[in-house]
Amino acid sequence: MSSELLYSSIERAAQRLAGRVVRTPVLRSPMLDKLAGCRVFVKAEALQHTGAFKYRGALNKLLSLDEGALRRGVIAYSAGNHGHAVAAAAFAVGCPAVIVLPSNAVKVKVDNCRWWGAEIVTYDPATENRDEVARAVAAPRGLTLIPPFDDPEVMAGQGTCGIELAEQLRDMDVRPDALLLNCSGGGLASGVTEAMKHAYPGVEPYVVEPSGYDKMARSLLAGTPQANHEVPKTILDGIAGPVAGARPLAVLQRHGAKALSVEDADALQAMAASFRFLKLVMEPGGAASLAAVLKHRPRFEGRNVVLVASGGNVDPAVFERALKIEL
Amino acid sequence: MSSELLYSSIERAAQRLAGRVVRTPVLRSPMLDKLAGCRVFVKAEALQHTGAFKYRGALNKLLSLDEGALRRGVIAYSAGNHGHAVAAAAFAVGCPAVIVLPSNAVKVKVDNCRWWGAEIVTYDPATENRDEVARAVAAPRGLTLIPPFDDPEVMAGQGTCGIELAEQLRDMDVRPDALLLNCSGGGLASGVTEAMKHAYPGVEPYVVEPSGYDKMARSLLAGTPQANHEVPKTILDGIAGPVAGARPLAVLQRHGAKALSVEDADALQAMAASFRFLKLVMEPGGAASLAAVLKHRPRFEGRNVVLVASGGNVDPAVFERALKIEL
Repeated sequence: MSSELLYSSIERAAQRLAGRVVRTPVLRSPMLDKLAGCRVFVKAEALQHTGAFKYRGALNKLLSLDEGALRRGVIAYSAGNHGHAVAAAAFAVGCPAVIVLPSNAVKVKVDNCRWWGAEIVTYDPATENRDEVARAVAAPRGLTLIPPFDDPEVMAGQGTCGIELAEQLRDMDVRPDALLLNCSGGGLASGVTEAMKHAYPGVEPYVVEPSGYDKMARSLLAGTPQANHEVPKTILDGIAGPVAGARPLAVLQRHGAKALSVEDADALQAMAASFRFLKLVMEPGGAASLAAVLKHRPRFEGRNVVLVASGGNVDPAVFERALKIEL
Repeated sequence: MSSELLYSSIERAAQRLAGRVVRTPVLRSPMLDKLAGCRVFVKAEALQHTGAFKYRGALNKLLSLDEGALRRGVIAYSAGNHGHAVAAAAFAVGCPAVIVLPSNAVKVKVDNCRWWGAEIVTYDPATENRDEVARAVAAPRGLTLIPPFDDPEVMAGQGTCGIELAEQLRDMDVRPDALLLNCSGGGLASGVTEAMKHAYPGVEPYVVEPSGYDKMARSLLAGTPQANHEVPKTILDGIAGPVAGARPLAVLQRHGAKALSVEDADALQAMAASFRFLKLVMEPGGAASLAAVLKHRPRFEGRNVVLVASGGNVDPAVFERALKIEL
């Protein structure tokens, strides 16, 4: 999608979502700045409804549907923040929602979707195909699929985080040098990059991925969406999805985004720094950008570095590991 | 101090502190509301500079001093959030600060004060008297003591949290029924109660204390400041100081404040709820009011309940205990 098209749809989304999403604060800490060697500005999207930025895109997509589609309902497949966000957004607009989950999904994630009144359909990931299961449910009822990232309205919704961020930086009288965004499919990264580049054409955009799951890095090199290879499990599961989105990739490529990657241990260190200096709970995938700032310190030395702490839905046992890190 | 006097000094403090303190957000969670059986509005003062509301009072007090006093410097004794706040506020206004700490103070707390360039003076709590040590340092240098709570300018500074809260509730179109405030000496409780009662005369104010450390509850009954008895150690150390303040007591009494108390286990449960539903790190003393809402559920059923999460400076080992709680 063209630049003007995306930016104007982000502006439209910001109007739609005004008062319906949390205008999350930008957090600062001089002690964190000292540790990082630069000035760090953290947009706290963990404080968003459902604990992650995903609510913005889901709600914007729902509000773009016509009345008939809303009456019939929506469907999403995601065992994580996207499923939770679609369930909550559907509750907010009063439309039925079906969330398709693997039968081995973590109980708290199933409970989160159910909490909002969503209908849960489970499938056996060993023997069944997720798309087929979803299609079989969706077709007879005329449900609209809410994609997790590769969709103009979903990307525009995530971009509203970037419009807020640009306004907040202007109010703080700060000119950002670098912008880091946690990235899996690229919905957040593309939307926020578009919005921030509109306000600050000189800002340098980065996507941050888990080491070994650097599909967007490879997509940016190849010019076409790449998939993740089979690799060991990571606690950065929130940004370790199977494939990069074609629309997000086009936006990121147009803006010359660079890519960085971080390990599990880097994410735990960033979570510990956030616990100590920001008092914000970050999930590993939500802490990837902060981890990248700390890991690639020379690159950002002395600069104004802006990032989005994209989510805070973390298993207590994983958070415990972060608490044991010495900073 | 009279009501008009305190309220006008809170307004003056709010003007002084504008742009120099964080306008902390008010957090909501439908899942937390369900758990609590009421609508809970959490003013996130853990996101304040130095991780606690104490920065407001310290900075306001410093900004009320004349030039000569600022040049000579300030002194405070506190191993906790007050010492850290005075050190950071002194750095912000460029005045020297001495923090008097027991020689057995936790290292991170000493480091926090030193980080801001404060001079640390230690004393042996077994053999030396803190006041005498402080006086011996302060007298020859003409340092001004910054009291932790029983001071009109400190109380007014803490009250700015209440002015913001009243404005934020008005913007959310919410009329608060009950107001809960974590209480030790009473600086926060008195300042915020004064500000909130001015905006919402019908709101019911509560102070929340650790069980067994209910000095303000007993002070409200007796009409004079009471001290804590010797009792077992509590993780709510941030609100387990030795004595209630006379000025705060007078304000709280005038507004008919009631008192509630909570146990360590209640605080841990509230910290767990905040971790899961709000993504905000709370220290035990900072979570006492939320703990009281969950503990005294029938009292608050169906009402609009407002509280201040007053701090987030918690030892990782204590936070680990909260992570193990099942909600």
